[in-house]
Amino acid sequence: MISLHESTKLALAEIVGAGHCHFDRLTIDRYARTTGFKSVPALAIILPDSAQEVQALVRLANQHKFSLYPTSCGKNWGYGDGAPPRTGQVVLDLSRMNRIIHVDPKLCYAVIEPGVTQGQLSQYLARHHPELWMDSTGAGASCSLIGNFSDRGFGHTRYSDHYLSCSGLQVVLGTGELLETGFGHYSNAQAKHVFKWGVGPILDGLFSQSNFGIITQAGLYLMPQPEDYCVFIFGCKDDCHLQDTVDILGVLKRQGILQSAVHIANDLRAFSGAMRYPWEAANNCTPLSDNLRNTFRKRFGIGAWTGTGIITGPPEVVKAYKKLICRGLAACKPQFFSKKQIMVAHSFTRLMDRLGKTPALVKKLKLLKPVADMLVGLPSNEALPGACWRVKSKAAHDPQSYDPLDHQAGLAWISPILPMTGDHVEKILSHIPSIYKKYSFDFLATFTLINERSLVLVSNVAFDRSNEKETHAAQECYNHLLGWLMHEGYVPYRLSPSSAHTLASHSSEFWQVAAKIKCALDPNNVISPGRYEVTDGIN
Amino acid sequence: MISLHESTKLALAEIVGAGHCHFDRLTIDRYARTTGFKSVPALAIILPDSAQEVQALVRLANQHKFSLYPTSCGKNWGYGDGAPPRTGQVVLDLSRMNRIIHVDPKLCYAVIEPGVTQGQLSQYLARHHPELWMDSTGAGASCSLIGNFSDRGFGHTRYSDHYLSCSGLQVVLGTGELLETGFGHYSNAQAKHVFKWGVGPILDGLFSQSNFGIITQAGLYLMPQPEDYCVFIFGCKDDCHLQDTVDILGVLKRQGILQSAVHIANDLRAFSGAMRYPWEAANNCTPLSDNLRNTFRKRFGIGAWTGTGIITGPPEVVKAYKKLICRGLAACKPQFFSKKQIMVAHSFTRLMDRLGKTPALVKKLKLLKPVADMLVGLPSNEALPGACWRVKSKAAHDPQSYDPLDHQAGLAWISPILPMTGDHVEKILSHIPSIYKKYSFDFLATFTLINERSLVLVSNVAFDRSNEKETHAAQECYNHLLGWLMHEGYVPYRLSPSSAHTLASHSSEFWQVAAKIKCALDPNNVISPGRYEVTDGIN
Repeated sequence: MISLHESTKLALAEIVGAGHCHFDRLTIDRYARTTGFKSVPALAIILPDSAQEVQALVRLANQHKFSLYPTSCGKNWGYGDGAPPRTGQVVLDLSRMNRIIHVDPKLCYAVIEPGVTQGQLSQYLARHHPELWMDSTGAGASCSLIGNFSDRGFGHTRYSDHYLSCSGLQVVLGTGELLETGFGHYSNAQAKHVFKWGVGPILDGLFSQSNFGIITQAGLYLMPQPEDYCVFIFGCKDDCHLQDTVDILGVLKRQGILQSAVHIANDLRAFSGAMRYPWEAANNCTPLSDNLRNTFRKRFGIGAWTGTGIITGPPEVVKAYKKLICRGLAACKPQFFSKKQIMVAHSFTRLMDRLGKTPALVKKLKLLKPVADMLVGLPSNEALPGACWRVKSKAAHDPQSYDPLDHQAGLAWISPILPMTGDHVEKILSHIPSIYKKYSFDFLATFTLINERSLVLVSNVAFDRSNEKETHAAQECYNHLLGWLMHEGYVPYRLSPSSAHTLASHSSEFWQVAAKIKCALDPNNVISPGRYEVTDGIN
Repeated sequence: MISLHESTKLALAEIVGAGHCHFDRLTIDRYARTTGFKSVPALAIILPDSAQEVQALVRLANQHKFSLYPTSCGKNWGYGDGAPPRTGQVVLDLSRMNRIIHVDPKLCYAVIEPGVTQGQLSQYLARHHPELWMDSTGAGASCSLIGNFSDRGFGHTRYSDHYLSCSGLQVVLGTGELLETGFGHYSNAQAKHVFKWGVGPILDGLFSQSNFGIITQAGLYLMPQPEDYCVFIFGCKDDCHLQDTVDILGVLKRQGILQSAVHIANDLRAFSGAMRYPWEAANNCTPLSDNLRNTFRKRFGIGAWTGTGIITGPPEVVKAYKKLICRGLAACKPQFFSKKQIMVAHSFTRLMDRLGKTPALVKKLKLLKPVADMLVGLPSNEALPGACWRVKSKAAHDPQSYDPLDHQAGLAWISPILPMTGDHVEKILSHIPSIYKKYSFDFLATFTLINERSLVLVSNVAFDRSNEKETHAAQECYNHLLGWLMHEGYVPYRLSPSSAHTLASHSSEFWQVAAKIKCALDPNNVISPGRYEVTDGIN
């Protein structure tokens, strides 16, 4: 199918209202923008307002034989944005469904729709329930919370595993039926949003990284604001030091001493949040030379790797953990910033800004601010410019509404999981950076302690989409990286829709089972064909 | 089908060896023993030795049109034992598959088969890896670890959510195909047993409380032995006090101060571990009168409710948490027992036993020992006699191998989940005990803080299976309890195979989806028909 029939267009408009259907080239082109390698225009853009409308749209898709590409807010940059992964799809933009339906301040959870963003919930809580914290990712204020946990994103606090923080999903299936997971399907279920597993088979995992249904409502766990907290920052002078540190962190993590996720970013990742690629200093050569890296390390006052985490709890607990972390990470010279110090630092950098002064300390504080914000559950847009690292155009941007799509930023995440030992870090670091280098890209990287036993390496090919040659090289680099990782058994925890098929194989029983479930729940394949499933590799 | 064809018997024997197939009345009757309301004999008992044999058996079941009732060890008393829930099934006893395949002492996990018991792993760790702890349930040493997590059992430490502690399942599907969940299906997957979710849809939840497949191997997270720990015990003088205490505990739990599961048992639950129903003192009347309850409370030195939990970590952390818990639970007069004190108490009670002395302190210590053991991850058989509370025959039992089936103990668990607030506890306690009383049963009960937001009430109808009238009353009582709970929206977290159909309805989209998945993965319905699924109510 290359376009929708007029009768289909009329039927779509009848369901959501003519004002919420877009068939014009301008809107379609705007949605087709992507940070990925290929831009695919949709057949139409439809913005429903309720689960009932979503149900009606899915039924229409079955009748009129078109497929839907649901997106919560279209801000899953680098893992799939508002652009469908293949042709012939209607974008189902859920951003109008942005109601915060309920917040339970005693049991600490919210019930939300897919259009609710990190920024929206954060502001709502600040206003109505300042005693509650949410966990935030680095993807900024405009990202959908449901979109993030359904793709298994993670954040920074002790609630960093977002899939674990949702309970009680409402899902529209490929037949148009409405499913409630957990206890939600029982009338009057008291524990719907406080006990995730329900009774009988656990179905909510099926709606995470899949195309089996469209989540239209969910419960989300929140944290009570801790009485006290302390942010810590530590450095590793080189890769060897990082390996030793990972072994130490692993012990602290499994002993329950480190409760937050710990993120350890390399120098390039840190630079990328604060500056563009220094084309001039680099004589237009890529990747960044070791010499220049050293220069910028000095300028920002950081080493090869910088780790961050948070300790939360009553003051006496924070004190006890601080002592233990201080001892365990002694070789990394950890610095601790109390709640009070962080407040003061924010005021201090604002004052320096007003005075037009930027001493080294201010630079470092600025570099750390987005992380410090996220450690206390505040979404920050300040990491987003990292997506533009290699973009040459210097269009100004508004930090309040930063969107990599406005800058033709190319962003392809490579995020393998590795067991939490120094040996595995060593193996990764002795291969992955050289592959990036081979294609003249910089190895922007963060290792995150995602649970008590594994790390995720979040690295990305940062490229300029306006440069065709570079985009081609980025794709080659990405394929090379993925190929090496899969060969060595370091499987990514998450993929973009356009590359998911590379990990799904007809010969694998796992993907065959997934295909059978897809067929049972969405027999006409109307929801997001190609997303996390076996395809013939043709998009 | 009422019996197996000779050709089927031969084919079964060919797969597992004649010595591991049982068609004789004696063995079948032994397996038909149950703590439930109805005893159903199997067609045969088959004990395979490997996943390959399980695959061959499932294929044979498809060809020869019989169904399999897989059981890990047959010790899921009260939720389903070795007896199939309905006629015409072949018991697939996996207890020979009891290999501990691998223990990773650095990343703290084990890879095990379904026949591995709590006692077996505990002893293995004590011998080979004393630096590792496992989490144990109250079901004793002979229970299967895989059986328990696949039914979503829970324990006592910070690893109490057993479903969350498994990673990387190997499952035989109804087609005979072998599925690996998580990352396990990728060759050479490094993080198979350290990162549960894998990539793409999460399938392992499908093999929990279901009949979609047979788990033949799994990874299980273990804890590093904490440097220090402290067990705490507290009392609530009446139901009203319990309600207030639950609100306080909820705050401590959500603040991350209470990391273990906290179990709060009523007086009857505590008595039942240490004595049988006092028929003589009660003049053969049931349930136990308030007067007698008070007498025994005094004798054991406990109040209406007794709570237990553990703090683990380095000494300074244990100290900080102890102070906070001591303050929070002040009205419950918490007592704290250090690692050292617990060791001494064990020696002390053993000494008193040898001297034939049982002062009040020793009685209390004995009452608490099974809980103290489980808090440090040691399986204990000492709670098992609780199943015999109402059994009149006084057959002696060996505490090393206690089996409620040897005593015709009747045991029907009722375990609803409720939001973690005093209000919900009040509502439950103002209805449930009176239903038990109506049918002359005792309300044996434990409330457990199963996560940060919900409680599970684990209560059970304890009856004497040798008494037909009492068994009938038990069934009536059970139905009444379940009916009231479902009406009020307090859904059980787990059910026995013979009652699961009461919660599964044809009209529910949830159970329709489950049925579709069953059909996709086990089209001939050969695995455990009737288990956690919609049936016509006929077993």
